[in-house]
Amino acid sequence: MSSPRPPRPVQERVDGDLQALAALVDDRQPGWTRTALSEPDRQARQWALEQLRAAGLSARIDAAGNVIGRLPGSDPSAGSIITGSHTDTVSGGGRFDGMVGFVGALEVARALREADRVLRHDLLVIDFMGEEPNEFGLSCVGSRALTGQLTGEHLTLLDRDGRTYSQALGAAGIDPAELGKARLGPGAGARAFVELHIEQGPVLEQQGSQIGLVSAITGVARFRALFQGRRDHAGTTPMAVRQDAGCAAAGTVLAVERIASSAETGRGTVGSVTFTPDAVNVVTERAELLGELRSPDALWLDEARSALLEAAGAEAGRRGVRLDLEWLPGKAPTPMSPSLVDLCDEVVADHGYRYSRMYSGAEHDAAVMASLCPTVMLFVPSRGGRSHCPQEWTDSDDVLAGVQVLAETILRMDTQLGG
Amino acid sequence: MSSPRPPRPVQERVDGDLQALAALVDDRQPGWTRTALSEPDRQARQWALEQLRAAGLSARIDAAGNVIGRLPGSDPSAGSIITGSHTDTVSGGGRFDGMVGFVGALEVARALREADRVLRHDLLVIDFMGEEPNEFGLSCVGSRALTGQLTGEHLTLLDRDGRTYSQALGAAGIDPAELGKARLGPGAGARAFVELHIEQGPVLEQQGSQIGLVSAITGVARFRALFQGRRDHAGTTPMAVRQDAGCAAAGTVLAVERIASSAETGRGTVGSVTFTPDAVNVVTERAELLGELRSPDALWLDEARSALLEAAGAEAGRRGVRLDLEWLPGKAPTPMSPSLVDLCDEVVADHGYRYSRMYSGAEHDAAVMASLCPTVMLFVPSRGGRSHCPQEWTDSDDVLAGVQVLAETILRMDTQLGG
Repeated sequence: MSSPRPPRPVQERVDGDLQALAALVDDRQPGWTRTALSEPDRQARQWALEQLRAAGLSARIDAAGNVIGRLPGSDPSAGSIITGSHTDTVSGGGRFDGMVGFVGALEVARALREADRVLRHDLLVIDFMGEEPNEFGLSCVGSRALTGQLTGEHLTLLDRDGRTYSQALGAAGIDPAELGKARLGPGAGARAFVELHIEQGPVLEQQGSQIGLVSAITGVARFRALFQGRRDHAGTTPMAVRQDAGCAAAGTVLAVERIASSAETGRGTVGSVTFTPDAVNVVTERAELLGELRSPDALWLDEARSALLEAAGAEAGRRGVRLDLEWLPGKAPTPMSPSLVDLCDEVVADHGYRYSRMYSGAEHDAAVMASLCPTVMLFVPSRGGRSHCPQEWTDSDDVLAGVQVLAETILRMDTQLGG
Repeated sequence: MSSPRPPRPVQERVDGDLQALAALVDDRQPGWTRTALSEPDRQARQWALEQLRAAGLSARIDAAGNVIGRLPGSDPSAGSIITGSHTDTVSGGGRFDGMVGFVGALEVARALREADRVLRHDLLVIDFMGEEPNEFGLSCVGSRALTGQLTGEHLTLLDRDGRTYSQALGAAGIDPAELGKARLGPGAGARAFVELHIEQGPVLEQQGSQIGLVSAITGVARFRALFQGRRDHAGTTPMAVRQDAGCAAAGTVLAVERIASSAETGRGTVGSVTFTPDAVNVVTERAELLGELRSPDALWLDEARSALLEAAGAEAGRRGVRLDLEWLPGKAPTPMSPSLVDLCDEVVADHGYRYSRMYSGAEHDAAVMASLCPTVMLFVPSRGGRSHCPQEWTDSDDVLAGVQVLAETILRMDTQLGG
């Protein structure tokens, strides 16, 4: 038997796929916007389905909206290696977050077919549904459904208009009652998941690295804080007798900033605030914050949650304002599979890439998939560390390097993993 | 010549008028909402026009939307005594703010006619257009127009959608080019303005007084603060390198609270805040605040403005955020006419009312009218000091007492004022 030809990812195809996705956006929004359940999102998943089929994979859209392509392996009993990422974006986002990982996985499958390489394991290539946090406070919807972690509680989450997530899914053509069918059962024989993604932060660029090997994914504690004070005339009501929900909320925004700044790996953000009645001459009756704390350190994250609850309570209490703080679906810090990280380490070392081991400050489907099978992530650099903005950028050569490492990683997994 | 009959305001009519106005509201909004230029506002001004005519006054709606009724006096050279208030509301407001003053003035005119009392001066009864601050940051539109203080600069003010105030007026059927015609020229011979209004604060109730004699109206320094930072991923961007416009804005909300709390008569409120992109996992790029500082003390108000500018600059500066702080149309503190306050003092003392001299923490058309002629204000109590909210309440007996004092004040002005 002759030595198999190496699969060769093609840079032009990868760049072309990224451009094709960048055209499927909501023109009324800034940047490149393709939020989950929107019409551009539907178009992108249809596009993904067609690309997978054109590459020779059998492909389908599952009950949760995930697009799944399958390249059969030579050993039906070996199980599957899974790769992919997501194609939805935040509002006003960029052209790389998630897309690099799906397009890269698609290109690996294409290159394997072109090189007539048949893996021993099945290869599943997935475009995960709704990875970005939505207006219901829920992220990683598709991977949660695949791993059986989408619960009835998630379906009753409300947006600001009082609509349930279940209603939003239904309006987009996804039947909430059928979601359970998306679960990958034991029959799928998942052996490993590997996700290629842009770093979305400044570490690789600062360290001059081409590839990041992710040792852990941050935990996220996401909250909704509702402050209820008293609506009063802004001119006649003495400062001392006010119950200004807006001031209590503002104090809590600063508390989140202060708490997160207390640790090197801590992150804290209040990205959304709503004052009611939102009038210049009325003391704010109701203020709502949506925010989050993040850390790869579970202990610190627990302490930070307690500190936030205490600080928000104090800001509310000294102004006679009522606080309801609700923890939204979050994630515990998730370590990646040490043996898979070592496997990736060998791949990048063997091929002479400059690389860094690091943690991910961003959430990823990989953190959810880790509950199903050993999981690892590969990062490529983000220029200036910018992400979730139109300026998000990764050089084409860096994307290609990531796809090559992804291909080599899958080949090595195929050789080394049992099943 | 027999002693003239005293005019007797009728409680049921006053209550009925307030109820009639409470029915002309936007049902889609909370409380009793009739914002200027809305359809309910148009209906209320039409109602006011009809009531004035039914009471025997000649009445018209002027080029700025003010409803003006005239009860001719016996001496054509004596000039006019002016009274009235406004019928527009804040969003989610109550049933008394402004309305008590217009309905009271209407009832005084009715009672004068019923008692066959002809004053020496003309009596003008006005429902002022758009007293409450609108979405362009402008208040007291009608009284500004009447006194020639509505400028081209006001017409170019923008709302959040980038629409000019001129466009908003045009859409509501008010021709901006004709506004100059609303000005009351010297021919109107304005001798005095008296406005009855609810206190909107807790002072009268706390002091057990039925009537407030206003010695001065607060100054208002209103601002729009725009913070421009950098949009970044909330998980991957270290706290130390962020340019979080939301945190700078939150710090400024607290600075306004702190500055205003430094003086007994100081007031400071940030009632409106907007974060962009307003997403839970994105560092805020742009935050906009609408707020105000108030005081009857011009010196303190100037110092407070400087302190706010410095504090907002510091909050922005230490986060690498750009600040643009714009002062919107405000008002200097306005003393009422001392001789008219003394005149009112005699009226309430003669009739045995419990009364307080006080300043007004709320803006009023009276502060604008004071540029035209000697001006004074009468307050009636607000239960619990509540205002600009659905809970706003003044007992019917207190409203009636205010209308009686208004009637007596107008009679005494008619006797004592020259012209």
